[in-house]
Formats: sequence, C-alpha cells, structure tokens
Amino acid sequence: MRTIDWVDGVIELIDQTLLPHTIEVQRVTELPTLIDDIQRLAVRGAPALGVAGAFGVALIAASVAVENGDADFDEAEVRRQAALLREARPTAVNLSWGVDRALTALAGGPAAVLAEAIAIRDEDIAACVSMGLYGADLTRELTGKDRVRVMTICNTGSLATVERGTALGVVQTLLEQGSLEEAFPLETRPLLQGARLTAWELTRMEAPFRLIIDSAGPFLLSRGIADAVFIGADRIAANGDSANKIGSFSLALAAQHAGVPFIVVAPESTVDMLTATGADIEIEDRGSDEVCGFGGTRTAPEGTNTVNPAFDVTPHELITAIVTERRIILPGKGESPVSVPLGALRS
Amino acid sequence: MRTIDWVDGVIELIDQTLLPHTIEVQRVTELPTLIDDIQRLAVRGAPALGVAGAFGVALIAASVAVENGDADFDEAEVRRQAALLREARPTAVNLSWGVDRALTALAGGPAAVLAEAIAIRDEDIAACVSMGLYGADLTRELTGKDRVRVMTICNTGSLATVERGTALGVVQTLLEQGSLEEAFPLETRPLLQGARLTAWELTRMEAPFRLIIDSAGPFLLSRGIADAVFIGADRIAANGDSANKIGSFSLALAAQHAGVPFIVVAPESTVDMLTATGADIEIEDRGSDEVCGFGGTRTAPEGTNTVNPAFDVTPHELITAIVTERRIILPGKGESPVSVPLGALRS
Repeated sequence: MRTIDWVDGVIELIDQTLLPHTIEVQRVTELPTLIDDIQRLAVRGAPALGVAGAFGVALIAASVAVENGDADFDEAEVRRQAALLREARPTAVNLSWGVDRALTALAGGPAAVLAEAIAIRDEDIAACVSMGLYGADLTRELTGKDRVRVMTICNTGSLATVERGTALGVVQTLLEQGSLEEAFPLETRPLLQGARLTAWELTRMEAPFRLIIDSAGPFLLSRGIADAVFIGADRIAANGDSANKIGSFSLALAAQHAGVPFIVVAPESTVDMLTATGADIEIEDRGSDEVCGFGGTRTAPEGTNTVNPAFDVTPHELITAIVTERRIILPGKGESPVSVPLGALRS
Repeated sequence: MRTIDWVDGVIELIDQTLLPHTIEVQRVTELPTLIDDIQRLAVRGAPALGVAGAFGVALIAASVAVENGDADFDEAEVRRQAALLREARPTAVNLSWGVDRALTALAGGPAAVLAEAIAIRDEDIAACVSMGLYGADLTRELTGKDRVRVMTICNTGSLATVERGTALGVVQTLLEQGSLEEAFPLETRPLLQGARLTAWELTRMEAPFRLIIDSAGPFLLSRGIADAVFIGADRIAANGDSANKIGSFSLALAAQHAGVPFIVVAPESTVDMLTATGADIEIEDRGSDEVCGFGGTRTAPEGTNTVNPAFDVTPHELITAIVTERRIILPGKGESPVSVPLGALRS
C-alpha cells in the first residue's frame, strides 16, 4: 500500500491522523482538502510532502483545464493556486520543491504536469531503496558491528515517503539483511508519530523494537542502549545544519556525548543550497492545543500558554553523516553539501 | 492547603492524579492505601514522600497499638509493616529516609513516632523556605541578572513537598522578589506532572510561564530561551551525581552546551552518602502502560514493548550547583557532598 498516490484522476492518501487504530484511504479531489490534510498532518514526512506538492499541482492543473478548456489553459491561475499550496507548511522544503518541480512542466499542459508528478513519485521510491542500502552499509562500517541497535525519532518510514522510508528505511534494510538487533523509536510528542506510526510500521515489518518517551532517549544513549541514531530531515542547509522533528537536537547532543554515530537520512530534494545555515531556517510554532492535551484529553490548566516549535535544528558539527540517494556527507569531518559532489558514496 | 498532613489521627493528602481538573483531599487510614497512593503517584515528589513515609509509620504504630494495647506495643510488627512501605518506590531515597527516621522514635511508642513525623513535616516546610532564598540569591549571582528566565522539569513545587517546593520553590521566591521574568516548565512525560501540576501551581501563583514539550527544552536552551535550569532530585550520591525525573540528563547536557547554569535544589534528606556514585542508583522501570497511552487513550499499537525508566542520573560534572537548606555545593567546580560541610552557603 502506498502512502500517497495518483489513482483515477485524483490523489489517494492514507489519513495518518487515524493510525494505528484505523487505516483509511482518503480520495482528495480539491486543493483546500489537500492543504487541510497537510496542515493537520494527515499526510506528512518530508518526501511524501514533496510528492503531495507535485500531485497537488497536477490536481490544480486538471481542475483549471476543466474550467477553461484545454485550448485556453490558464497557467497564471495554476501558479496562483500553487502558491497557496506551497505555503501550507513553511519549514518543509520538500513541499515547495515538489510544487515548483511540477510547475516546470506547466507549459506542456495538465498531462505534462501529471507526468512530472508521477516521475517525482517514482524517483522517491527508488531513492528510498538507495538510501536504505547506503545507510545500512555505512552503519556497519561506522559501528564495526554486524548487528546493530538503533534509535530513531518521529516517523521516517513508508508513511513519510511513498513506499519505503528514509531513516526508517535504513532500519528496514538492516532488518532484511539480518543486521538489526533492535530498534528504539521515540514516541515523538506532541503528535506521537513515533508511538502511532513508527511503532505500527515496525510491528508490520516484524522488527524487534521497544518504544521510549522522548526525554528518555538521551539518557538511554548515555547508558549504551543503541549503537547508532538515525533521523530524517525536513531541510538541510548548505553547511549541513539539519532541521528535523523537535527532539532531534537533543538526541544529537546525547549521541555525541555517548560516542554514537548520528546519521541524517534524507533525499537530495531536502538539501536546500539557498539556505546557508540552520540559523536561516524558519521554524513553525504549532500553537498551544498540541501541548496542552494528549489524544483528546486536556492535561494543562485552561489558559496555559506554550512554546511549540515543530522542528529543531541540529548543527552540522553534531552530525556524523548525511546519507542521500546520491552521496554520503560527513559533516563531523568538515564536509558539507557544498563540498561533497553528487555520486560520492564514501569520502 | 498542605499537600500532605496529619489531621485527626489519619493522613490527609491531595490526590495528585486528579489535578488539575479536580482538587480532592483523600483521608488515608490504612497502610495498603498509602502504598497504593505512593505507587500510583497520588502522592509524589521526594520531600513529600519523606513525610509520607514518616506519617505512614505513625499510622502503622497507631494501628498496632490499637490491636495490641499500649502495654504490649509490638515494635517488631511495626518494623515489619514499615519495610513494606519503604519498598513502595525504590529510587526515592526520601521515602526510606522518612520511614527510618520515624522508626528511631519507636521505643517511645506511637505518640513519640507521631511527634517525630510531625517534626519532619515542619522541617520540610522550613527547609523549602531556606532553599528558595539561597537558590534565588545564587541564581542572580550566577547569571548576573536581576530578572531571570528559568526552565524546570516535573513538579518540584508545593505538591512535591508539604507547602512550598524545592526547585519550583526557588521560582516562587524569585517571583516574590520581583526577579522572575518567565518560567518554562516541561510537560514531563509519561505522567505529565509538568503540564498537570507545575502549570497548575504557576497559574495559582500568577507567575508568567509558557509550557513546552520535554524534547523542546534542550533545543530552546540552545536558542537562549532561559538563563538557568532548576530541577529537584530523588537521590543525590556522595559524589554529586543526581537522580531525578527522566529528561533531567538531557536538560543538563543542553544547559552545558548553552552555557547556562544547571542547578539541583533538594533537601539534605535527598543526599545519600551510602550511594557512592550515580552508577549505584537503582532506576525503576514503570512498565508499558504509561508509554503506550495517556489518560485512557491508547496511542501505540497493541503488543508494543517499551523501556520506561522513571528516573535518569545526571553526572556531577554537568551540575553547576546543588542547593540544600544547609549548604551550596558546586559539583562543576569539583565540589561534592563529601567535600562541602553543612553550613557552607557559598564556596
């Protein structure tokens, strides 16, 4: 089952807010629905957002073509609506990347836009396979172990991509290769993607795992519970600083303290060469409701104010390696997306 | 309102599992009820547990005296039941400290035990006043600021003591002295004592605060959101290593990285000179239910295993200061409970 796909002229996606209790595929036929899905995290994960952005432009183009007729295809109107889609989540560079790439085909009309979006989907599938293989090899090399225990945060599995995952794709590859001893997913407050989604995926792939609360991750690393930490990324700056789910920074500090490799796994589309450093990355604050409650239960007193950053930024010096589908970058050794060319699989 | 007290021959305590929605005072007349209250965290916080342990022995002694008659007071039976109480929570040294101190009065009969327990209660109240004053002075000195922004975890307020709090008592003192700019409590998974209890206490004392999720604390420290971090302690080893709520270690690492003072505030009864280092501290694992859901809402898939350490241990080298009611210890400068005598208020 794909997390997001183009089926019979509309977008189909798994509504991830209902997992793990209900698996429901939603058919998205209109732009406002897609924007709402993105904002309420029914679809999430950087690579999946890229595909959602591209399919969203295909949806817009088809709708505009129907209204105007193919002969008078209103490109400006498509771009206007695409701009709304691009802004649905500001931190996730993949969303705007997917939107913009689909727009490059706009001169060819709706069919060309759809073809470009489908190409993005297929590249995502292939990229996840490559990242899994490169990441698994690198992990065995860095740890010197054939069987490894890995910690991860948020959901970077098939639900974050189209089919196979980034950081969790490496975990799956290790499992398939007989190299996974145990996985330790963090529950990932406030929306619990780790507890709801990653635990669900690990259960389905029959991987041995134990769930932990976020703040236990750093301490358990200091006590030697894991051999490596894998995370995804929402945006990687030109110097290697990486924005990812809130809590990643904390794990990176603890991994360094414990002498454990800290590895970012993300497709090239996450690398944003126009963002010089992490200080330039805008971090969305998602408001009070997520912090003041838990699964429908209000926990904090009425009127409680919050700070709720959805992401944090891990400075490059705390990152052992960045693994993409086309290269391996070692920021801890002074490398960066600027210095390491595509195709460099080991420095 | 006191968190725990001795009223009309029984223990009265606020059932903290019902906060912040309901304030309910429970009358505890039997040992099994008290043990259950301690285990389900209806009463919690290291100092309050010390008082609970002492009042519990008073309850046992009174009950044994009634059964046997005062003339034939069965001390061995009191000790047998007290041993059950002592084991209710293994990491919290204050509980066994309170039990043992009340038992020292056993030869004097039930009235002497009760008098000793009441002395412990009154000393707790006085100790919190002292810790608040010393901690507030130290904070201004270490930060060089008259108004400070402070981060804290779990609940170390009046609900963790009898009346006023340890780490949160410092926050309250800063507020009373016009020195609190803002507090940042962490929600403190899995049981959300920060969101439920500390936010409730801060609201009642009309302190400016914003609640954050646990894993945001380290990152926000790195971005300069706070001038100091205060935590309580469940056990302080002879070398200064401190056991406290899970998540404390992660904050300590981040505080060091950010160059922010990390201050442990706890009464002398928390210092355990028989525990040489943090490696000797037993850490209870509280099982899967707390991690897999909250407040009746199941989040993780059925069958999910967990690691759920209730506490972590912060190594002494990450601790700027330990403030008790009788001394200030600077572990970051090589001091320890062994090297700093009682009465040393600044080194």
